[in-house]
Amino acid sequence: MNQTSTGPAAFTPTRDDRFSFGLWTVGWQGVDVFGGAVRPPLESAEAIHRLSDLGAYGITFHDNDVFPFGADQAEKERHLAPLRRALEETGLVVPMVTTNLFSHPVFRDGGFTNNDRDVRRFALRKAADQIDLAAQLGAQVFVAWGGREGAESGAAKDVGTALSRYKEAFDVLGGYVREQGYDLRFAIEPKPNEPRGDILLPTVGHALAFINELEHPEMVGLNPEVGHEEMASLNYAHGLAQALWHGKLFHIDLNGQHGPRYDQDLRFGAGNARGAFWTVDIVENGGYDGPRHFDYKPPRTEDLDGVWESARACMRNYLILREKVRAFRADPEVQQALEDARVDQLAVPTVGVGESLADLRAEPFDPDAAGRRGMGFERLDQLALEHLYGVR
Amino acid sequence: MNQTSTGPAAFTPTRDDRFSFGLWTVGWQGVDVFGGAVRPPLESAEAIHRLSDLGAYGITFHDNDVFPFGADQAEKERHLAPLRRALEETGLVVPMVTTNLFSHPVFRDGGFTNNDRDVRRFALRKAADQIDLAAQLGAQVFVAWGGREGAESGAAKDVGTALSRYKEAFDVLGGYVREQGYDLRFAIEPKPNEPRGDILLPTVGHALAFINELEHPEMVGLNPEVGHEEMASLNYAHGLAQALWHGKLFHIDLNGQHGPRYDQDLRFGAGNARGAFWTVDIVENGGYDGPRHFDYKPPRTEDLDGVWESARACMRNYLILREKVRAFRADPEVQQALEDARVDQLAVPTVGVGESLADLRAEPFDPDAAGRRGMGFERLDQLALEHLYGVR
Amino acid sequence: MNQTSTGPAAFTPTRDDRFSFGLWTVGWQGVDVFGGAVRPPLESAEAIHRLSDLGAYGITFHDNDVFPFGADQAEKERHLAPLRRALEETGLVVPMVTTNLFSHPVFRDGGFTNNDRDVRRFALRKAADQIDLAAQLGAQVFVAWGGREGAESGAAKDVGTALSRYKEAFDVLGGYVREQGYDLRFAIEPKPNEPRGDILLPTVGHALAFINELEHPEMVGLNPEVGHEEMASLNYAHGLAQALWHGKLFHIDLNGQHGPRYDQDLRFGAGNARGAFWTVDIVENGGYDGPRHFDYKPPRTEDLDGVWESARACMRNYLILREKVRAFRADPEVQQALEDARVDQLAVPTVGVGESLADLRAEPFDPDAAGRRGMGFERLDQLALEHLYGVR
Amino acid sequence: MNQTSTGPAAFTPTRDDRFSFGLWTVGWQGVDVFGGAVRPPLESAEAIHRLSDLGAYGITFHDNDVFPFGADQAEKERHLAPLRRALEETGLVVPMVTTNLFSHPVFRDGGFTNNDRDVRRFALRKAADQIDLAAQLGAQVFVAWGGREGAESGAAKDVGTALSRYKEAFDVLGGYVREQGYDLRFAIEPKPNEPRGDILLPTVGHALAFINELEHPEMVGLNPEVGHEEMASLNYAHGLAQALWHGKLFHIDLNGQHGPRYDQDLRFGAGNARGAFWTVDIVENGGYDGPRHFDYKPPRTEDLDGVWESARACMRNYLILREKVRAFRADPEVQQALEDARVDQLAVPTVGVGESLADLRAEPFDPDAAGRRGMGFERLDQLALEHLYGVR
Repeated sequence: MNQTSTGPAAFTPTRDDRFSFGLWTVGWQGVDVFGGAVRPPLESAEAIHRLSDLGAYGITFHDNDVFPFGADQAEKERHLAPLRRALEETGLVVPMVTTNLFSHPVFRDGGFTNNDRDVRRFALRKAADQIDLAAQLGAQVFVAWGGREGAESGAAKDVGTALSRYKEAFDVLGGYVREQGYDLRFAIEPKPNEPRGDILLPTVGHALAFINELEHPEMVGLNPEVGHEEMASLNYAHGLAQALWHGKLFHIDLNGQHGPRYDQDLRFGAGNARGAFWTVDIVENGGYDGPRHFDYKPPRTEDLDGVWESARACMRNYLILREKVRAFRADPEVQQALEDARVDQLAVPTVGVGESLADLRAEPFDPDAAGRRGMGFERLDQLALEHLYGVR
Repeated sequence: MNQTSTGPAAFTPTRDDRFSFGLWTVGWQGVDVFGGAVRPPLESAEAIHRLSDLGAYGITFHDNDVFPFGADQAEKERHLAPLRRALEETGLVVPMVTTNLFSHPVFRDGGFTNNDRDVRRFALRKAADQIDLAAQLGAQVFVAWGGREGAESGAAKDVGTALSRYKEAFDVLGGYVREQGYDLRFAIEPKPNEPRGDILLPTVGHALAFINELEHPEMVGLNPEVGHEEMASLNYAHGLAQALWHGKLFHIDLNGQHGPRYDQDLRFGAGNARGAFWTVDIVENGGYDGPRHFDYKPPRTEDLDGVWESARACMRNYLILREKVRAFRADPEVQQALEDARVDQLAVPTVGVGESLADLRAEPFDPDAAGRRGMGFERLDQLALEHLYGVR
Repeated sequence: MNQTSTGPAAFTPTRDDRFSFGLWTVGWQGVDVFGGAVRPPLESAEAIHRLSDLGAYGITFHDNDVFPFGADQAEKERHLAPLRRALEETGLVVPMVTTNLFSHPVFRDGGFTNNDRDVRRFALRKAADQIDLAAQLGAQVFVAWGGREGAESGAAKDVGTALSRYKEAFDVLGGYVREQGYDLRFAIEPKPNEPRGDILLPTVGHALAFINELEHPEMVGLNPEVGHEEMASLNYAHGLAQALWHGKLFHIDLNGQHGPRYDQDLRFGAGNARGAFWTVDIVENGGYDGPRHFDYKPPRTEDLDGVWESARACMRNYLILREKVRAFRADPEVQQALEDARVDQLAVPTVGVGESLADLRAEPFDPDAAGRRGMGFERLDQLALEHLYGVR
Repeated sequence: MNQTSTGPAAFTPTRDDRFSFGLWTVGWQGVDVFGGAVRPPLESAEAIHRLSDLGAYGITFHDNDVFPFGADQAEKERHLAPLRRALEETGLVVPMVTTNLFSHPVFRDGGFTNNDRDVRRFALRKAADQIDLAAQLGAQVFVAWGGREGAESGAAKDVGTALSRYKEAFDVLGGYVREQGYDLRFAIEPKPNEPRGDILLPTVGHALAFINELEHPEMVGLNPEVGHEEMASLNYAHGLAQALWHGKLFHIDLNGQHGPRYDQDLRFGAGNARGAFWTVDIVENGGYDGPRHFDYKPPRTEDLDGVWESARACMRNYLILREKVRAFRADPEVQQALEDARVDQLAVPTVGVGESLADLRAEPFDPDAAGRRGMGFERLDQLALEHLYGVR
């Protein structure tokens, strides 16, 4: 790694790095299934100022991160006023907004796919209200995490019918966005389970497939989260790559996880460190141009100092890994190893222009000889690992 | 459960049940990473006769289950002749055929997405040869399991480029099928990992999404396998339901698995028993009309008697569960419980004809009152469980 | 299954079945990381009466299930009085009691192994107070679930030192129990993770090993929970069998889980149904003589009716499985299959009395011939599965 | 990280680093469930010379890594002669030896716990023969990996009885070692599953507990493997720490894994990189003094060049991490952060000399005030991560 980067000024974020945080991340009070709040509520204005000081460029939020469930317009404004003021004071933006359709008891069976039609109608309404706010605040992306769209047991949810209702919700809300002329796209956030036994659209793949059935698929993309894919033993960087291949990576949720277990929401970098390297590689080099958004939870062991330390570290780790990834891609030995591993050959179409299967069938090929060729992947991967370790 | 069904004749399959087996299932000799063959090779004719006696209606195979890798046409025919004869003698059909693009060393980095272009070309050729045979044998489905399409490490495979090559392969082979006028559709079999660290198209969802990018998406569907989805902690019945929702359930691979671990390929029913109940429910009631195909491995502990016992049990367990599922759906208490759980309400569009979001926003709704309503899912699920247990 | 058992009176528990429930199970209000309470608080007296009506014989509780954290003696008594009265009215017993060392913020880094010595001292005190109450109420077992004894990150906890403190806690509390002359044993409840990233004594095995280092190992055993072992991909029935082999199965926590993911705490029977069958088999036939204790959470979808339905179902499922297990063990075909599988041979010592390795080395043995013998396990397991299905 | 370490000579192993490899690691030909050998057999002498050149100090092997199953003494010697010669030529040692009780069909149901008594007797014999060789070669540790000691189904194996047979095997073999006066200790290698559905002694904990029941527990310890613990979602470094706490870390198997899935046996460092850091920390600082042994499989993508590259990388990664761990422990900021996190306080006994619970109960303590204290773990862990990244 370039030595000039490791000085004290290195790895300090600027607005150009486009780091954003959910207000619910630094604001998480630590309530879990086994214990109550360990930290006091955090005012949104305070969070915005602190995140600004740390180098973030934006914040995001669910409606009820800022104002209480059921708030009327006046109460909403009372809570939004300090938030707007803090945004002005700091210059932070709100690139993404989302709705909470999972905390209130009314959403015990989900929102858009709740068996109860009146709840589904209410969920649509609540989402539409927040869409209005998103547009007002200049957000470009509206994330939809279907936290409780799912089931614990087989008969409780007709999955096909639920997908039809899910589609209806995106079609209705998409129609509303177009009607209102908002410049807003939706990003679905997949998750396999927790808090429901099985959640609908459990992975990047399931959500990508679903989008194709919508009235306006171009309005809907993905917001994949590191931990959610890793909870299903899936490779997050591969998921991002496939989402990009489909032109559907609208937003990302960066955090950390240790494989299939409860949703850990560790700070970015803590968790699967090698996965984080490849995540930054694809985010930086795969054509994604949205915010680098952190969706994590400062562990319950921390007080507010620990909260800010973990927020700072999320960004710092991204920058460290970004430098490593750049160094990796620029390293001549790596380039040689990539060539030795024939990674470049994959970009050559298998069948040439004008060729047919008959041509392939006619060509000589010795599979036994070809079968003796090693791929050189271990050497290539070791170079990557040494870049991660910072010893090259 | 209906008592009349539990006599000795019950749960004995007939051809109408359309059970099929891969020749590689009963023919597995038990070679694994830690040990060699424990059973002698099984002639395909012998397998066909035994499976016929047990009540199967069809068999399926990879090319190299029947003839050796690299066999020329004459050698192929020498091996195919007894297979054809056994099919004639028994009346068994070959509803599905597939190619082995993973056993020979040449496929160490996969077939269609191998970094080496000459291997990709060879893989296409090998698949095309087997497509010809599939058509000849009257198979309607050609399964594509990309067993070694993937990677152990980050830089070895450019995932987006690999997906482009993967797409190319299906486009080329699809073109060939259309050119030849074969009545054959492709079914992609997803798998998250093993034998590669991460496999491309790791879940039902990823494969469904991929298909939308093909030149002829209508020619390509899925062949989901119980164990493969469960290795990613996913709900297999939910995966089938989503595949059906997209009109893409072309084939199924039934077996058993105990969650995220090595690919166990247990006999159907052994593994996640409750999952098997919901699997049969969706297969029977969700609109699937293909074969009930078993892709399992008789454990290495068994001799050939154990092999046939396990094959018999796969079908028997399906029939037992089918009867249970029918009884469950016909049970008036279940029907009441479904209504109490408002499962039927989900079929009612959330927004009525002519309604708009404005109408929803204007209607009175008390979320606190609605939040007190229980869903009645535990009672419903307990009824299902008691049908599984056979105590209703 | 014996038909006489499937009438309406069947599978209704009596006190002799010794079913017990934690007050925190039916009393769980549904607070999780993503949402607030969905059910009103449940008075302990109400819970006791309802559980009594359903056929339970006992209840268990953490101190703060009944009285608030920090309650003085008078306040404790105010909350204990109705509990005691309900016990008298119903005749229910309190076979087990435990302390909550995980909900209050003071326990953010655990209790007995908290880095802060004053917190560890407080944890000991809180446990001792509850031990006094346990003795008073006639409990024989004091469960210790170290919910937050663990860490999210590597340097935060010196594991060896933490184990020494953990040992100290059991030695001190055990000394106190002996001093007071209480007839009380401890049962450690292992769990691999959640709510901490990694919890100390993560499995049945780790806790069994730990106990051997205590001053009075005879006073300490295990309270294994179905879901906790299955979260680590482990076979719960095997865990019980090993605990019994060591003479350490002091208590059990029955519930349901779907493999490595968040702690689902499903009702017993829902989850791994085949695992539940083997669980009941070892509980009934392996020499365990304690209560059949349920530690589950009625899903958040349920109102109080659903809560009682799920509690009822826990016991009912146990009784259904108990009958199945008895039928399985009594089935002559099963007995033959067990013999065919040489399960009985395992009880014969490998080396006879007076024999030495020299004798073994001298005896003729043909490993190839022996290697051709099948084990007959598939047939045996299919018989078990058919008992589970209720078709035998 | 100290710059002086990153020159070309850095991270090159010497004999003093005590790195050893199983002959079956570099010698793995790539046979898995889905494909045949991709690499030619590797002569043991060749492997020894190459490993010696790379800087290893020792090799280890199963009997049948060197001579065929069933070989008589003459044939054994024919195969051992070049191995002995290579050892002499290179000066490499054989610190550990083990027996293969899992590859031949006779071991389909395991060795020491096989239901068939004659197989158990044969397994004892085979192990004893290899023990003789171990002693001859000067090995200090005899590893016992019970690869097929387990079951796929519930009734096939009586776990308690199996544990008794397992104990008998260690008692008999231990007796033999004592009788012969060999200076040899046993190290049990736990694994949760694969190739069996559930393996006996599935984790470090279960094996530690088991050892306590043996006739000579002092002769038996553990050989924990990174991937095996991580397949059960367990923290490997925590497992080592507990094994050390019990005085039972006799040997280690270093490799890489990505959580609960098939046994990947990646090279050390590839897999869970943060886990590898903490692994080296506990190995270096926790009191372990045995070899640093690698048990991995060069991926099937590699030819022999890739094999040697991966072997080289295992050692190199260990040395890189060792330097990082040293730097971490020596870093004054880390030392301050450890103190801030009160990690040192955990070493202070909770109850002072002469104190009793009564003293604790009498002391003032304000849990709410204490509950507001943060632990400072995020800062501490970020320092560790930055050492891993090499940016400090």
